[in-house]
Amino acid sequence: MGYYFLQVPGPTVVPERVMGAMGMPLLDHRGQQFAALAAEAAAQLKPIFKTEQPVIIIPASGTGAWHAAIANCLSRGDKVLIPEVGMFSVLWCKIAREMGLEVIEIAGDWRHGINASDVEKALSADKDIKAVFATHNETSTGVTSDIQAVRCAIDSAKHDALLFVDTISSLAASPYDHDGWGVDVTICGSQKGMMLPPGLAFAVISEKAKAAMDSSDLVPGYFNFTPLISASETGLYPYTPPVTLFYGLHEAGKMLNEEGVDAIVKRHEKLAVACQAAVKHWGLEIQCQDESSYSNAVTAVRVPEGVSADKFRALVLDKFNMSLAAGLGKVADKVFRIGHLGYQNPLTLMGALSGVEMGLEMFGIPHQKGGVNAAMEKLQG
Amino acid sequence: MGYYFLQVPGPTVVPERVMGAMGMPLLDHRGQQFAALAAEAAAQLKPIFKTEQPVIIIPASGTGAWHAAIANCLSRGDKVLIPEVGMFSVLWCKIAREMGLEVIEIAGDWRHGINASDVEKALSADKDIKAVFATHNETSTGVTSDIQAVRCAIDSAKHDALLFVDTISSLAASPYDHDGWGVDVTICGSQKGMMLPPGLAFAVISEKAKAAMDSSDLVPGYFNFTPLISASETGLYPYTPPVTLFYGLHEAGKMLNEEGVDAIVKRHEKLAVACQAAVKHWGLEIQCQDESSYSNAVTAVRVPEGVSADKFRALVLDKFNMSLAAGLGKVADKVFRIGHLGYQNPLTLMGALSGVEMGLEMFGIPHQKGGVNAAMEKLQG
Amino acid sequence: MGYYFLQVPGPTVVPERVMGAMGMPLLDHRGQQFAALAAEAAAQLKPIFKTEQPVIIIPASGTGAWHAAIANCLSRGDKVLIPEVGMFSVLWCKIAREMGLEVIEIAGDWRHGINASDVEKALSADKDIKAVFATHNETSTGVTSDIQAVRCAIDSAKHDALLFVDTISSLAASPYDHDGWGVDVTICGSQKGMMLPPGLAFAVISEKAKAAMDSSDLVPGYFNFTPLISASETGLYPYTPPVTLFYGLHEAGKMLNEEGVDAIVKRHEKLAVACQAAVKHWGLEIQCQDESSYSNAVTAVRVPEGVSADKFRALVLDKFNMSLAAGLGKVADKVFRIGHLGYQNPLTLMGALSGVEMGLEMFGIPHQKGGVNAAMEKLQG
Amino acid sequence: MGYYFLQVPGPTVVPERVMGAMGMPLLDHRGQQFAALAAEAAAQLKPIFKTEQPVIIIPASGTGAWHAAIANCLSRGDKVLIPEVGMFSVLWCKIAREMGLEVIEIAGDWRHGINASDVEKALSADKDIKAVFATHNETSTGVTSDIQAVRCAIDSAKHDALLFVDTISSLAASPYDHDGWGVDVTICGSQKGMMLPPGLAFAVISEKAKAAMDSSDLVPGYFNFTPLISASETGLYPYTPPVTLFYGLHEAGKMLNEEGVDAIVKRHEKLAVACQAAVKHWGLEIQCQDESSYSNAVTAVRVPEGVSADKFRALVLDKFNMSLAAGLGKVADKVFRIGHLGYQNPLTLMGALSGVEMGLEMFGIPHQKGGVNAAMEKLQG
Repeated sequence: MGYYFLQVPGPTVVPERVMGAMGMPLLDHRGQQFAALAAEAAAQLKPIFKTEQPVIIIPASGTGAWHAAIANCLSRGDKVLIPEVGMFSVLWCKIAREMGLEVIEIAGDWRHGINASDVEKALSADKDIKAVFATHNETSTGVTSDIQAVRCAIDSAKHDALLFVDTISSLAASPYDHDGWGVDVTICGSQKGMMLPPGLAFAVISEKAKAAMDSSDLVPGYFNFTPLISASETGLYPYTPPVTLFYGLHEAGKMLNEEGVDAIVKRHEKLAVACQAAVKHWGLEIQCQDESSYSNAVTAVRVPEGVSADKFRALVLDKFNMSLAAGLGKVADKVFRIGHLGYQNPLTLMGALSGVEMGLEMFGIPHQKGGVNAAMEKLQG
Repeated sequence: MGYYFLQVPGPTVVPERVMGAMGMPLLDHRGQQFAALAAEAAAQLKPIFKTEQPVIIIPASGTGAWHAAIANCLSRGDKVLIPEVGMFSVLWCKIAREMGLEVIEIAGDWRHGINASDVEKALSADKDIKAVFATHNETSTGVTSDIQAVRCAIDSAKHDALLFVDTISSLAASPYDHDGWGVDVTICGSQKGMMLPPGLAFAVISEKAKAAMDSSDLVPGYFNFTPLISASETGLYPYTPPVTLFYGLHEAGKMLNEEGVDAIVKRHEKLAVACQAAVKHWGLEIQCQDESSYSNAVTAVRVPEGVSADKFRALVLDKFNMSLAAGLGKVADKVFRIGHLGYQNPLTLMGALSGVEMGLEMFGIPHQKGGVNAAMEKLQG
Repeated sequence: MGYYFLQVPGPTVVPERVMGAMGMPLLDHRGQQFAALAAEAAAQLKPIFKTEQPVIIIPASGTGAWHAAIANCLSRGDKVLIPEVGMFSVLWCKIAREMGLEVIEIAGDWRHGINASDVEKALSADKDIKAVFATHNETSTGVTSDIQAVRCAIDSAKHDALLFVDTISSLAASPYDHDGWGVDVTICGSQKGMMLPPGLAFAVISEKAKAAMDSSDLVPGYFNFTPLISASETGLYPYTPPVTLFYGLHEAGKMLNEEGVDAIVKRHEKLAVACQAAVKHWGLEIQCQDESSYSNAVTAVRVPEGVSADKFRALVLDKFNMSLAAGLGKVADKVFRIGHLGYQNPLTLMGALSGVEMGLEMFGIPHQKGGVNAAMEKLQG
Repeated sequence: MGYYFLQVPGPTVVPERVMGAMGMPLLDHRGQQFAALAAEAAAQLKPIFKTEQPVIIIPASGTGAWHAAIANCLSRGDKVLIPEVGMFSVLWCKIAREMGLEVIEIAGDWRHGINASDVEKALSADKDIKAVFATHNETSTGVTSDIQAVRCAIDSAKHDALLFVDTISSLAASPYDHDGWGVDVTICGSQKGMMLPPGLAFAVISEKAKAAMDSSDLVPGYFNFTPLISASETGLYPYTPPVTLFYGLHEAGKMLNEEGVDAIVKRHEKLAVACQAAVKHWGLEIQCQDESSYSNAVTAVRVPEGVSADKFRALVLDKFNMSLAAGLGKVADKVFRIGHLGYQNPLTLMGALSGVEMGLEMFGIPHQKGGVNAAMEKLQG
């Protein structure tokens, strides 16, 4: 009974306006009316990515964008440098290897962002590296890396590696600037800051990445950027696009631009700061150990040794109709994650934090009461 | 951005399931498919009112049910006894007078429930009184009266006045038992505990009230119970019924019965107790001065002398996307009201209370911090 | 399976845009956001009624508008002149009598519109008549009366009776001009040309009718125009308005104005002419015997002696997922009615007429094949 | 204004029930509630494919299923035999080549189904062929091939090639039996007979195809069947599944099973026969020259030499709010296609055919009037 607190970092809550748009009758996807809507939907995304390049829309889950980026811009045997920040950077390595790339992984502890000087060192040592894969916000740990620092590292090493950035859970939550930061391939998904259901992935590529497409020997197949880039402008897709998700994208894009991407980031930052204040007050440990890398999108909270984070989450779901996210990979059952991105506001966050605080009490996890008050102090300012 | 906290005591938040049901294509209202649905929708309401009588569904706002009850069961010049408990009991007096009844009002201070011994005295003094009009939950003040005590008062006075009860904001929130408590006319509306949009009113009448219909000399017109009683069973209405609201009623009734009316009341009680604990902790005054009359549906909170409750509400709406309800009548601008009925749960309440606590701070209303903690203590139990 | 052909003259098919609007979250009905929307929704209706007067919105079925019109503007014992055109004019008489009016009925055969010279005669003979009640389009028979002729009749008789017009099934289907035609009280409902679900009624009154309100001794109660007139401008209603229907009204009004009321009428006329051509080709009798009174909204078709129109309708519903409307009152089971108003276009009509033609064949009703071709000839022009 | 006749062979009209289901709030895709729904959604599809194998659900457009099928089950350099039946079989060749397969194409004239004896001959001549790719219903031409005959051809040739069948526009429209017919890989999409928006693809594979997966040296990546097969049973996907489309799939699957797949096929057959009767009566040429290969899903109609089919379609869209499908590839502008699959019934077809007949007249395409009558004769039976 009552509003379901979907506090996972994707899928996030879809706004009623977007749901309403997706309920309209399906159009012929080859007709002018749909084409105009689809082209406008794509154009609206440029300020969100801060780019003048066309935004490529891929009918797939966000994961598809990883495959797409590699298959379009790289070749079998290419060396790529991937700093480990958490579960999703690890999965990216796995995919790269499956696709025949040689992966140089920079080990990480899942509690800090990318170390730019490590990147610089690795690049300096190996001029053959074709690309650096950076996860902007690591969804599994709530760690946001400094992409500008990675860019500087590449430049300092006078290296011409391409910079690939996964913004799946950072876009429209953390500051991001595809063109300004000199990113070559940005990838994203629909079900996080975009406030859409899952089902669409996005990519933006630089002129340099476009040139790299010509020499790629992989088979992008379904994910071929060439027709999708032209579709971004014409609205005419090489295969049947998911019409209702495009309706949603059109409306969500309108909403994002109405609020403005900078205002959106500020809203997320305020919510994140409040959430983190609560966790600290409770005396629980935040998975991210570097405050400057705290995520605007999700906060991963460590439970004390011997406590099952998953059983705690089950109690919270049962008692309070709230889904917290599970720990993944090596932090499975050791952390729970509080998503605070997308269609969220101070009171939904306070409802969520209250549910966590009550849950801690009911589950018997030692904590200092008053986290919600600490959060409110941050939100009042 | 984000969930809108509609914390007014009606209209309340409509569940997604109910919204979905109301989105289905319109049926011919004279066809069998609609008739079956409408009949089932009415039948489902019996356990909610705790009655074996047909539930009369009136295509009108809840206010229409007041007019309907009077016009069907009473006559010009009839004397009715109306204890004043707040704005809505006052409006009921006004309507009764407009319709030609003679109203004996028992003055009240808007801070206590109906005084049953006053009712008994008044009835004992005047055997001509035809009906007692009792407001079960006074929405404007958050005061719930003891209907069983009123019933006893009538019985003790050995009086045969009819008992009319307005349950517009109490049904499916406070305990209620039309048959068991010997109520003659119960009226209700759709947009509160029923979790529907406004647009439907309800009535349940006793055999005695049905008999009174025969001698009424008023003209019920649109509100004539006779065809509506039969429509309750057949699903065939004397005029075009609001088809989509019936779809919603059918689904909402299902949800109410799935949860069970007693469980629903308990959920409301828990939320109410938590809300009232917060208000007390803040050191603000609850409009209702008798703890045993605190409302399960809404809590009216007095602001300090010289403070504008309406400006406070405006700030809360602006900053926190939450609508609190205004004070009405003689408490206009002196109270704000926190609705906690319908499709609500602990976390939506905690979001709401957090918004109030932050609003108090931001607006500069003196209060003791920690109301939200006090509420959580009640909700954890 | 597939689109449900709801070919009854109300409720009519609700456009997806309107359904979408009604799915948005409920607002506080006392807040500024709702008030602005409600005021705009009312203002948008002026061009539809062709009036500069405020459009009064009544939270009730269309039938409620009859009660409202009488109770606000007339008094017990007033004489009213009501020409019989069909079932709904008969019901209007019944209501008028119930409310204490003296009804002078001009008998009719249910197959012709109002005879204006009869009206003139009756008025000339009785200067005490307070109002003439005219049904613009008689929904039960598909007969549209000439309201301008009735106005002339009143003027020729130099009579100062008020002119009440029921446009429930004519507005936004047939030409109508409240101000230009000198109508005093126009009433309407939401579920026909307005393309909304049932649940709202409308009234527009002239200055003369407003003056008449002052001397009325009836009790309008729920239907009191005074606060509703002011609500039409402010958007603040005297009782909780049906919020979701107002959302729908706001969107439907936008759609009506986008198309333009004159274009809407032309669309309806074209569909009506096509439908009537099909019926004539089949050799079936149209209930309306005067071609100049054929309805733009609905065509009532007589079945041969001995045939049950209702059984025919049942077969059509069963085989073709189409609801035709039943005959009412004295033409029950003798006619079926094809609604062609609201959210309809040439192809929905052709689907409907094909269903009728196939149904006639399957049910064994003698007819000349090719009605659908006759209809297409009219629609191609 | 009015119902939009979406008469293209995909995307097709989505039922209101399905749209309603897709409007429900998003669930955590890793939670038990979603997993149960997703598993049930997959299980419900087994009777539609007539298989005991798990139905693999791929979050992509139908085209993605082609890529998936190849990448999972075949290897670089494998020979595949592809009979040309129209545009989509040609595209399949193109994709196969891009992915490094060697394609042996059996030329076709786009007007006949697969010639099984050609298949047998080709297979007999080359024992190295690894798979035969058959398009069950060629959407671009409205030609349905006999899959059982292809199976027999393989068997007669005593060949162990795998049989891949594209049922994108045939499933739930034409008879199909994955297990019974010995198909190895069936692929499908959501936006046709499934009555869903585009965005999901499907595959069912035989034990033999499963074995072939082990020796494949292609990189399925995003399309890897192994985790998707297990997801089909558990409801837990390897990446975020498109939650709302799964809601829709769950509801659409319920509807398909309520009607029953055999009844669905019969409904489609009846509509197809009626449509083809109309076209023949008009004297226009059906693209498919073999009556036994007429499609249950779509009828492609040739326009006379010198006439632009696309301008005709534009007129029909403009005048009648109906989208007909364009000719593709070598029949571009030479044919228009009437889709009659999915959520369609006799009256939507009759509306559509009436629009075509009126359009032919208005556009000046010579034809014999009365096609709609010919269609009705087939539908009355």
